[in-house]
Amino acid sequence: MRDVAGLAPGPVALITDRTVDGLYGATVRRSLKAAGFAPGLSLVLPPGERTKTLAAANVLYARLAEAGLGRGRPIVALGGGVIGDLAGFVAATWLRGVPLVHVPTTVLAQLDSSIGGKVGVDLPQGKNLVGAFHQPRLVYADPRTLETLPMRQVLAGLAEAVKVGFALDRALVAHLERHAEVLAGGGVAARGSLAVAIQRSMRAKVRVVAADERDSGLRQLLNYGHTFGHALELVGGYKRWLHGEAVALGMVAAAHAAVRAGLLRPAVRDRQEQLLAALGLPVRLRRVSARNVFDAMRLDKKGTGSEPRFVLTTGVGVARFGQPLKRSEVLAALQDAGAGP
Amino acid sequence: MRDVAGLAPGPVALITDRTVDGLYGATVRRSLKAAGFAPGLSLVLPPGERTKTLAAANVLYARLAEAGLGRGRPIVALGGGVIGDLAGFVAATWLRGVPLVHVPTTVLAQLDSSIGGKVGVDLPQGKNLVGAFHQPRLVYADPRTLETLPMRQVLAGLAEAVKVGFALDRALVAHLERHAEVLAGGGVAARGSLAVAIQRSMRAKVRVVAADERDSGLRQLLNYGHTFGHALELVGGYKRWLHGEAVALGMVAAAHAAVRAGLLRPAVRDRQEQLLAALGLPVRLRRVSARNVFDAMRLDKKGTGSEPRFVLTTGVGVARFGQPLKRSEVLAALQDAGAGP
Repeated sequence: MRDVAGLAPGPVALITDRTVDGLYGATVRRSLKAAGFAPGLSLVLPPGERTKTLAAANVLYARLAEAGLGRGRPIVALGGGVIGDLAGFVAATWLRGVPLVHVPTTVLAQLDSSIGGKVGVDLPQGKNLVGAFHQPRLVYADPRTLETLPMRQVLAGLAEAVKVGFALDRALVAHLERHAEVLAGGGVAARGSLAVAIQRSMRAKVRVVAADERDSGLRQLLNYGHTFGHALELVGGYKRWLHGEAVALGMVAAAHAAVRAGLLRPAVRDRQEQLLAALGLPVRLRRVSARNVFDAMRLDKKGTGSEPRFVLTTGVGVARFGQPLKRSEVLAALQDAGAGP
Repeated sequence: MRDVAGLAPGPVALITDRTVDGLYGATVRRSLKAAGFAPGLSLVLPPGERTKTLAAANVLYARLAEAGLGRGRPIVALGGGVIGDLAGFVAATWLRGVPLVHVPTTVLAQLDSSIGGKVGVDLPQGKNLVGAFHQPRLVYADPRTLETLPMRQVLAGLAEAVKVGFALDRALVAHLERHAEVLAGGGVAARGSLAVAIQRSMRAKVRVVAADERDSGLRQLLNYGHTFGHALELVGGYKRWLHGEAVALGMVAAAHAAVRAGLLRPAVRDRQEQLLAALGLPVRLRRVSARNVFDAMRLDKKGTGSEPRFVLTTGVGVARFGQPLKRSEVLAALQDAGAGP
């Protein structure tokens, strides 16, 4: 286990949150020690999205400075997407960049946020406005950590697998369809199917990121369902739906828009909806105003000065990005998905 | 002037300090407009090193978010090294990176800090501990801006040209020697000589950075005089010497160390000292304890967990990096340069 991912033995900093630290902190520290690393510095943050701020980064920098974590010494991010994004941003900027190791402990982090190098923090004005591209040296995803994850979070994470499937990977859709019942049942029975779904999603994402690291083209396909989804999250005050649930609803709306635009056969739209429903994910917008969602979409893009663009699927595993939609088309698609006017 | 440095016409944010804004803000805004850019957002900070903090970056992010500066829209840094480093860090991290244009207005910024992509902010624990590598799209250095710069700052900036000369560029040393009297005299007479010194220094730095962007080898040559220099700045409370003055003294000490190590002929050491003195730069350490400087050297490296290493010249325009020196060797070199025990 010496020289793991090109990292020389020596000090590392472990960044995690209280919940994950209680579950896996001791194990990870033991493994790091066994591999020749000295996790002398453990930085344990409060769990939750509110931790993903510049203020938290500032606290981490001060601790790293006091401990003297040197050039080339890795930061290990143990936890979900919030910890990965925050610790990743600190790794990208501490001493102009030190190696980053992700140990993702949620479905979402394992198959999506730990892959691709996007790191960052939120501002009061919007999510992920400050950040960097900083590729991890190693992503160590252990599916066993998912056994302590609440079922709702497991399923929300799988929404991103459905996204990868419909945007990029037909075979992943088939796998999810075949194993939907087992996956939705959870527990030990779902282990194998979940591991395969995660592995396929990771691989598809790695291929896309390798082709377009800086997100100027192909990589935008990974935003399928996200333009609608982000707006829904905002409308729901980031409380009503988990990120993956909002993405599921976003994909439903995007498929309606694609059908209306004559790009997608209704049968494929329905197939996607059936898969999402079989995975226990929401597929109908209830008690939501289409106009409010549209306004939120414009607000979501305000900080970046750009107009909303959409990824629309044109078949199973095929999509196109950068599609503009008129206000009337967005409203109609949302109403198709169940929203009120 | 359309499509300058690959930047499409449209909004830009201008970041500067109050002093420079008063002198050149209006001119730069006028030029930007004439070239098709809309400098709608002017962010004017207090002058001085204390501005180079995360708190200042945070203020800038909030203003960029409110104004909605979008993806791909450039940030223009107008000022000296502090503004360049801070605005550069914000450009590196706003929306995971937007284009950066440097308009450096000091000798130091024109020939050194605007070149090479090192951007960052200070922490209370140390300088430049948080940062990134973010190459500018364009560096627009107008020597006329140097005519409003205090003479002491012009000469301190030239210390970095002497550094580039002795570490990398024999012909630059010859130029500086030939024009030392004119340069030290300042004013209109020095214009041409100063412009040539800046241009040669820029070119040498560009060559080194192109070969080693991430500072893992050759680029360390540009730290000639800086291990001693940083320690002197710390000992002087960042008040006694300007950065370039501390670097001048640092090169004097480094040359003494190189002569003691048998790497450098005493005649070359003396030639460097004569050039620095002819440029009105300090070459003797007075009222300084060698032991205090040595302790500061270790403290300077504390945040990074590494041992001090030195760049030592072995001839005019030839140097080697990564040289460790024993405590006794450091103390002796400092005493050779005039320090007390």
